[in-house]
Amino acid sequence: MDIKSYFEALDKKFTAFGGLEGGGITRLLYSTEWSNAVQALKETLEQDGFEAEFDSIGNLKGKLVGSKYPEETIMSGSHIDTVVEGGHLDGQYGVLAALTAMQALKAEYGQPLRSLELLALAEEEGSRFPYAFWGSKNFFNLANNADVETIKDGNDVGFVDAMRQCGFDFRSTDNIYDHIKAFVEVHIEQGKVLETEEKSIGVVNGIVGQKRYTVNLKGEANHAGTTPMGLRNDAVVAFSKIASQLTDRVREIGDPLVLTFGRVDPVPNTVNVVPGEVTFSIDCRHIDQDALNAFAEEIEKCISDVAQQEGVNFDIDLWMDEAPTLMDDKLVQTIGDAATHVVGETDYKTMPSGAGHDSQIFAKYVPTAMMFVPSINGISHNVEEETRIEDLIKGVEVLKHVLYKLAYEE
Amino acid sequence: MDIKSYFEALDKKFTAFGGLEGGGITRLLYSTEWSNAVQALKETLEQDGFEAEFDSIGNLKGKLVGSKYPEETIMSGSHIDTVVEGGHLDGQYGVLAALTAMQALKAEYGQPLRSLELLALAEEEGSRFPYAFWGSKNFFNLANNADVETIKDGNDVGFVDAMRQCGFDFRSTDNIYDHIKAFVEVHIEQGKVLETEEKSIGVVNGIVGQKRYTVNLKGEANHAGTTPMGLRNDAVVAFSKIASQLTDRVREIGDPLVLTFGRVDPVPNTVNVVPGEVTFSIDCRHIDQDALNAFAEEIEKCISDVAQQEGVNFDIDLWMDEAPTLMDDKLVQTIGDAATHVVGETDYKTMPSGAGHDSQIFAKYVPTAMMFVPSINGISHNVEEETRIEDLIKGVEVLKHVLYKLAYEE
Repeated sequence: MDIKSYFEALDKKFTAFGGLEGGGITRLLYSTEWSNAVQALKETLEQDGFEAEFDSIGNLKGKLVGSKYPEETIMSGSHIDTVVEGGHLDGQYGVLAALTAMQALKAEYGQPLRSLELLALAEEEGSRFPYAFWGSKNFFNLANNADVETIKDGNDVGFVDAMRQCGFDFRSTDNIYDHIKAFVEVHIEQGKVLETEEKSIGVVNGIVGQKRYTVNLKGEANHAGTTPMGLRNDAVVAFSKIASQLTDRVREIGDPLVLTFGRVDPVPNTVNVVPGEVTFSIDCRHIDQDALNAFAEEIEKCISDVAQQEGVNFDIDLWMDEAPTLMDDKLVQTIGDAATHVVGETDYKTMPSGAGHDSQIFAKYVPTAMMFVPSINGISHNVEEETRIEDLIKGVEVLKHVLYKLAYEE
Repeated sequence: MDIKSYFEALDKKFTAFGGLEGGGITRLLYSTEWSNAVQALKETLEQDGFEAEFDSIGNLKGKLVGSKYPEETIMSGSHIDTVVEGGHLDGQYGVLAALTAMQALKAEYGQPLRSLELLALAEEEGSRFPYAFWGSKNFFNLANNADVETIKDGNDVGFVDAMRQCGFDFRSTDNIYDHIKAFVEVHIEQGKVLETEEKSIGVVNGIVGQKRYTVNLKGEANHAGTTPMGLRNDAVVAFSKIASQLTDRVREIGDPLVLTFGRVDPVPNTVNVVPGEVTFSIDCRHIDQDALNAFAEEIEKCISDVAQQEGVNFDIDLWMDEAPTLMDDKLVQTIGDAATHVVGETDYKTMPSGAGHDSQIFAKYVPTAMMFVPSINGISHNVEEETRIEDLIKGVEVLKHVLYKLAYEE
C-alpha cells in the first residue's frame, strides 16, 4: 500500500466536508458538514473492514479486532470538528493518520494481536457552542448534561436540538475504557518550534499547565496637561512596568516558561487623559507544576511591588489554573524509539505541548502520548494552516511503527 | 461694594443658564441656554453702566470708557460656553471675576484713565461642534467660514443654522484689536499643583507646547501556548518597554515635562494570543520649545531602539505639534506683583498652564497673561468641578489690583 497516495486521497475526500473555497474547513459540531463527515468516515471504515460504531453523542470508533488479545485495545485518533475557517489538519490529521497507519499495518501484517481502534472524537474546539472537549469528556463519562442543556450557538440553535438533529443524544449508560492499553494522538504542532529547529517529529512528553489571570489596576484619571508626573497614579505606566519586568524575568528563566499579556484595556483610553484604570490578562504556562507555581508567586509579587511604587490599587483574579498533564513515560519512550527508527535521532525533538488537546483528558484515565508534525510558520486555526506533505507522511510512518510495536508484538 | 456677595450672586445667576440638577452646567455654543446666558450678561452690563455689544458671531464685550486714554483698552474675560455636564467655573469664572473686579474698581475709584473692557468669548471648548476656539479665532479674524459651514452637532443641526438661530452670523468686516494694551484671563487651574502646594494663586508664564503621536507597532500574532519567548515578536511587550523607559526618563528630566500614554489598543486583544500589533498614543508637553523638541528626539529613538530589540516594525505619526505660547513678560511681572501685594509672596506660584486656553490665541496679537485659582482635587470638565470660595475671591482681588495698575495708573 502506498501510504502517501492513500493519505492524500483521504485528506482530499474529508477536507471536502465543510471545505472552503480558498482552502481550509469550517466543520462545527452537529452541523450538516460535520454530520456528513462522520457518516462518510463510518462508511469508509466499514468498507475497509473495521467494526465501526458511534457512541451515543457521536464519537466514532472503528475497530480491527485482535487475534490473540482482542480485549486489549490500542487506540489512536483525534477530533473531527474544526474552528470557524480552520485548516484541514487540526484534528482531522490525527484521525486520517491513524486510519492510514492502521490500513497500512493491516495490508502489510494482517490481523493484529491486540485490537487496533481508530477514534474520531466529536468535538474539541468549543467553536460552535461555548463548551470544549465534548467528545473526550463524554468518552470518560465526565460531561454533565446540565452544562449543555441551555447553551446555544450564534444562530440561537440549542445544543441539544442540534445533537438530536444529527441522530445523537445524551449517553444513557457509562462508557467503559479499561480495555484501552494505549491512546496515541497525532496532531500538528500549531507552533514553530519544530520548523525553527528543522525537526520533522515532536514527541510530546506532556501538556503544559496554565494559569490565566485578569488583573485590574486602579489609579486616578487626570488631565494629561495639567498633572505633573509626580502627582499621577497612572495605571498604564504601572502596567508597562509589570509587563516589562515580568517579561525580562521569564526570558532569564528560559524555556519552556511562557508569559503573555494578550489583552490590555485602559480606561478611559483617550489620548489626553492620564489613564486611571487598566484591565489586562496574563497567560502563563509551564510543563512543570512547581516551576509554574514558583513563577505565579513572582507574578503576584511584581504586581504588588509595582502597584505600591506607582500608587495604584490592584486586584488579581486567577480564573484558570490547569495543572500540567504528563504523558505516559513508557509510551513516550516507545514513540521516541519509533521516531529514532523511522526518521533518525536528529530529526525528532521531545517537547511539551503548549496548547491543550484531547490527550490531556485521556492521560488521566489511560496510558496516553502524543506526536507532533511541524506547522508551516506555526500557523493554525486559520485556513492557511499547512504542513509539508513529507512531514505529514513521516508522522504516519512513525505512528505506524508505534502501533506495530503496541498491537503486533507480544 | 462687598466683592464676595456680589460675586456669589453673579455666579448663582449665571450658573442657572444651563444649570444641571445635581450642579454643574451644560451650556453649548448657540444653544438656548447659551443664548439666554449671553443676553442676560449683556443686560447686566448695560444696567451696570457698561457699553455692551456683541460682535457678529456672538462674542460679548462690555466697556467702561477711559477718561484720559479711552483708546487704550485693558481687557479681561474668558469663554462663556461649557462642555457637556461641565462645572460652573471653567470659563464662566473668568468672565464673572472680570465683571466683579471692574464693578469694584468703578465703585471704589470711578472712571478709569484707560478703557476697561470685559470679554465673554462665545466658544472655546469644541463640545457641541467639532471646532474649538471659535470665539478667540473670530476675535483675531482667524476663523474661516469654510471650516464650519458643513459641520453639525450630534443632533444633526448645522453650525451656521444654529448661529443664525441665535441672531448671529459670519463677520463681514475684520475686527480691530490694536487698541488692546493688555488681556488678562482668570481661570481655574484644572490640575492640582496649587492645591498640593497650598497656593491660592497661579501666575501663568506660558501655555505648554504639545506633541501628540499615534504609534503603531507590528510584530506577529502567535499562539500564547505554543510559541516560546524566543520566537515571539510581541507588540505589547515592545509597548511596555517603551512606556516604561520613557516614563523613567521623563521622571529623571523632571517638571514641567509631562508624558502620557492615554490610549493603548492591542490587536487581537485576546488572552491566549501573543499580540501581534498595538496602536498607542503619546501626549508630550513642555513650556520650553527646545526641551520639547529634545525630548521628542528621545521618544523617536526609544521607539526605534525597542522596536529593533523586540523585532517589531514601527510607524510614528506626529499629528499635533503645537508650539508653547509665552505670556507677556511685563504682564506676568505685574500679576506677580499684584499677587504679592494681595495674597503675599508665599501664597502664589509662577507656573505654566498644561491645558490650552483662549489666551494662547490672544498672546500672538496682544500683550496677554493668565491667572489660576486652585481646583479642588484637580477636577474639571465635570459637574464636581469646584474651587473654595476664599480662593475664588482671592482671584478676583488680585485681578482687581492688576486692572487698577493697568487702567487707573498713569
